[in-house]
Amino acid sequence: MQTPVQDSLLIAGKSYRSRLLVGTGKYKDMAETRAAIEASGAEIVTVAIRRTNIGQNPGEPNLLDVIPPDRYTLLPNTAGCYTAEDAVRTCRLARELLDGHKLVKLEVLGDAKTLYPDVPATLKAAEILVKDGFDVMVYTSDDPIICKRLEEIGCVAVMPLAAPIGSGLGIQNRYNILTIVENARVPIIVDAGVGTASDAAIAMELGCHGVLMNTAIAEAKNPVLMASAMKKGVEAGREAFLAGRMPRRRFASASSPLDGVIA
Amino acid sequence: MQTPVQDSLLIAGKSYRSRLLVGTGKYKDMAETRAAIEASGAEIVTVAIRRTNIGQNPGEPNLLDVIPPDRYTLLPNTAGCYTAEDAVRTCRLARELLDGHKLVKLEVLGDAKTLYPDVPATLKAAEILVKDGFDVMVYTSDDPIICKRLEEIGCVAVMPLAAPIGSGLGIQNRYNILTIVENARVPIIVDAGVGTASDAAIAMELGCHGVLMNTAIAEAKNPVLMASAMKKGVEAGREAFLAGRMPRRRFASASSPLDGVIA
Amino acid sequence: MQTPVQDSLLIAGKSYRSRLLVGTGKYKDMAETRAAIEASGAEIVTVAIRRTNIGQNPGEPNLLDVIPPDRYTLLPNTAGCYTAEDAVRTCRLARELLDGHKLVKLEVLGDAKTLYPDVPATLKAAEILVKDGFDVMVYTSDDPIICKRLEEIGCVAVMPLAAPIGSGLGIQNRYNILTIVENARVPIIVDAGVGTASDAAIAMELGCHGVLMNTAIAEAKNPVLMASAMKKGVEAGREAFLAGRMPRRRFASASSPLDGVIA
Amino acid sequence: MQTPVQDSLLIAGKSYRSRLLVGTGKYKDMAETRAAIEASGAEIVTVAIRRTNIGQNPGEPNLLDVIPPDRYTLLPNTAGCYTAEDAVRTCRLARELLDGHKLVKLEVLGDAKTLYPDVPATLKAAEILVKDGFDVMVYTSDDPIICKRLEEIGCVAVMPLAAPIGSGLGIQNRYNILTIVENARVPIIVDAGVGTASDAAIAMELGCHGVLMNTAIAEAKNPVLMASAMKKGVEAGREAFLAGRMPRRRFASASSPLDGVIA
Repeated sequence: MQTPVQDSLLIAGKSYRSRLLVGTGKYKDMAETRAAIEASGAEIVTVAIRRTNIGQNPGEPNLLDVIPPDRYTLLPNTAGCYTAEDAVRTCRLARELLDGHKLVKLEVLGDAKTLYPDVPATLKAAEILVKDGFDVMVYTSDDPIICKRLEEIGCVAVMPLAAPIGSGLGIQNRYNILTIVENARVPIIVDAGVGTASDAAIAMELGCHGVLMNTAIAEAKNPVLMASAMKKGVEAGREAFLAGRMPRRRFASASSPLDGVIA
Repeated sequence: MQTPVQDSLLIAGKSYRSRLLVGTGKYKDMAETRAAIEASGAEIVTVAIRRTNIGQNPGEPNLLDVIPPDRYTLLPNTAGCYTAEDAVRTCRLARELLDGHKLVKLEVLGDAKTLYPDVPATLKAAEILVKDGFDVMVYTSDDPIICKRLEEIGCVAVMPLAAPIGSGLGIQNRYNILTIVENARVPIIVDAGVGTASDAAIAMELGCHGVLMNTAIAEAKNPVLMASAMKKGVEAGREAFLAGRMPRRRFASASSPLDGVIA
Repeated sequence: MQTPVQDSLLIAGKSYRSRLLVGTGKYKDMAETRAAIEASGAEIVTVAIRRTNIGQNPGEPNLLDVIPPDRYTLLPNTAGCYTAEDAVRTCRLARELLDGHKLVKLEVLGDAKTLYPDVPATLKAAEILVKDGFDVMVYTSDDPIICKRLEEIGCVAVMPLAAPIGSGLGIQNRYNILTIVENARVPIIVDAGVGTASDAAIAMELGCHGVLMNTAIAEAKNPVLMASAMKKGVEAGREAFLAGRMPRRRFASASSPLDGVIA
Repeated sequence: MQTPVQDSLLIAGKSYRSRLLVGTGKYKDMAETRAAIEASGAEIVTVAIRRTNIGQNPGEPNLLDVIPPDRYTLLPNTAGCYTAEDAVRTCRLARELLDGHKLVKLEVLGDAKTLYPDVPATLKAAEILVKDGFDVMVYTSDDPIICKRLEEIGCVAVMPLAAPIGSGLGIQNRYNILTIVENARVPIIVDAGVGTASDAAIAMELGCHGVLMNTAIAEAKNPVLMASAMKKGVEAGREAFLAGRMPRRRFASASSPLDGVIA
């Protein structure tokens, strides 16, 4: 009656036990980065190629010392790219630096304030990268039509935002996320906007296959403890989803279905 | 940097590692009851004295075989009582049946539809029971003034509802729960209305010291898996509370505090 | 097909066209008070007897010059009273000052921070005042059991809070307000916590019979324009309630009932 | 201190007193259509060219008899179009039927279930139509980047959805709508998803310049009364926005700013 052993997240043919994906930015130092990532239980760690040394600068501290590629699946991302061309170029650089590594997280930003995606440029870059043999996980808005289109292009995972990157506001449009999940045949991973453990649990309860976050852990007062909270939050939400929650109703006693009576 | 070992819940002088309290109603059979309670990790189990055989009916199945008192703290409750007198009498019966057991959960209901508490009768019963030497955990509405009054009377824990008993609606008034927690010097345990794991996490993130539930586990499609989800949800929320979440803000990039801009 | 002409609010045998009740505190000056109240269309105006001169101090500006009793129904209130005795005394003072005026708004506060009601003291004062011949409108928490009890005591209107006095947070617990309305045989008037016009509309859409507010108008940047907004918000909500809203559903196209799918 | 007389909505160089735009679908009959539109006070009425006879079928009832073009601004829309080409063709047909009428509402749908827009096709059609001399009001998702792009293309108004067409769910992502409004130099008109009067008020309180709806009026039990409610809801929200609402805070008494404490 427990979670089946085989409840794993499958991305690009590889199976993961953890459904929490984490970033590496905003930590105090490498030691804290390492400890938080370890506490999170994450197996996939995303790295901003334009901001992080993974070998480009030989004399400097290398993140790969903290996140050894034999232990973690590295997910190079294109944070900071504002055009399809830049994003494609960045992915190719990552592939070179990482000896042919195909898995990337594509993000093409629309502006520097909201950090919302530029959806048309994202579609364009996704097409190029998929044709070029990349396994593309893709950050996008929570628009169900666009998410389906990205799946059809051949992305291996679609990653709608919950709220603006770095906002910590939690899922703003649950109906959109739910619709995206219902339509999907590839993993849907909520990316951006999660602020605390219950936000992660809610994403999973909606049926999402995973959650990616960075700020919510790195900017907590105690990042390592928050990483542990997030690990449990994701697992709690996944198990609640699989367990099948009780129906909402106004009262226990009567036949009192909600029928959207309030919201 | 992990949760301190000593993060325990202290009720009536006894220390508990688990902050999830569970009931025993609505399960399919005794085996499911036992498995779900075990998966929940609960150490305190509440029992409706008027509906459950804990020895009153010698020839019938006895719940204490499933919840052995040497392993669990039994919490006899007065579910089904609509007057202070009835509730007091029921507590005394429980004390007799359980050889002087002092810990009880008081609930005096206001009506059979909402199962909301009758607050004046609850206050009255609490006074009598405290004077009579009981350790009273008390179900009440989410009114901060009443919660404080119940603490002043001498209750060992105050248990405001999140939403109607058996509704699964989650916390309806977060500000009230937050105010109750801020005012309290005894444990605040959200009782009633939790529907899924994220609801439990939210309660803990608001600073509650525990969560009590029954229907949300027993009426899940897979109660045992939901019990595990709830265990993790409570732990996730507790750790997130202790870790200190990042601030909510509209965007990462700018100085963009919320100031209650939306809600 | 329009609002029936006879859609009036009946309180203590008197009929009102306006369902917006307003206070008189926090305005810049008497001229602004007068202009805002006029723009609100209110016919019932509540006055804090302990803070306002309605004749107690003969040499000072008298609010009754701004709110002439031949045009408005004055509603003396017991703001600032923390005991049943004080509240009763204040009502009697008001009755004397206003030549036998029977209509009062009872509030007995529980503490100075939250300004939440002291429910037991409120019940006690309500009983005394009703027996003493007052027509009692009563401020209380949003507890459905207590609201019903106040009606049974003989109060002519029950006034649950939406959120703390002066908070502007809007209705925190819509299910409670809905339950209170469904149970009631006297007018239910949301009192306290409304912050903007949509909050007032929501209260009315839940079936409330009126809304009382002060801060939301007086502390708007333009109080007179906000008073007009509130008038329209209350009317909009009332008409929407009477018109019978469309059902919520996930999509137009399909049979897609909500069944509490999200919240 | 009242709403300035000149608070008008300016679209494509024409000024409107009403900020409520309505559709013509789903009514019982022409008489109800006429009565509801009249009660709404709308000056702009949108018509689905592919579903409505505005002269294409000479022998049949003509909607223009109910909505005389000398009294209303007709807004032909492309409801039912799933490609840019179809939408462009439909706009051109409307221009012919209406003697060179330039104002259109563009919608290119992404699928028949959600009725969400196809954003890339919408961008493409908007470019063609603007170049072809149309005044384009455009239905889109609530993505701030796309809304800005549509403005830059030259659309005269941008119309983000609040929730799926015909859902009545109200605004799902208030932060997005707020961001869209803050970024905009053309009118932002919430289109789709409004269910009741308070939803309309909320849209206006966020700073939107107008609201367009159809189902919420036509599928109310009493459409004419709901039309009046919506008129007042839009006005209430607009006035509340202009008046400048009080700040949200936890309590009146203390310095208790919210700082996003709950949500």
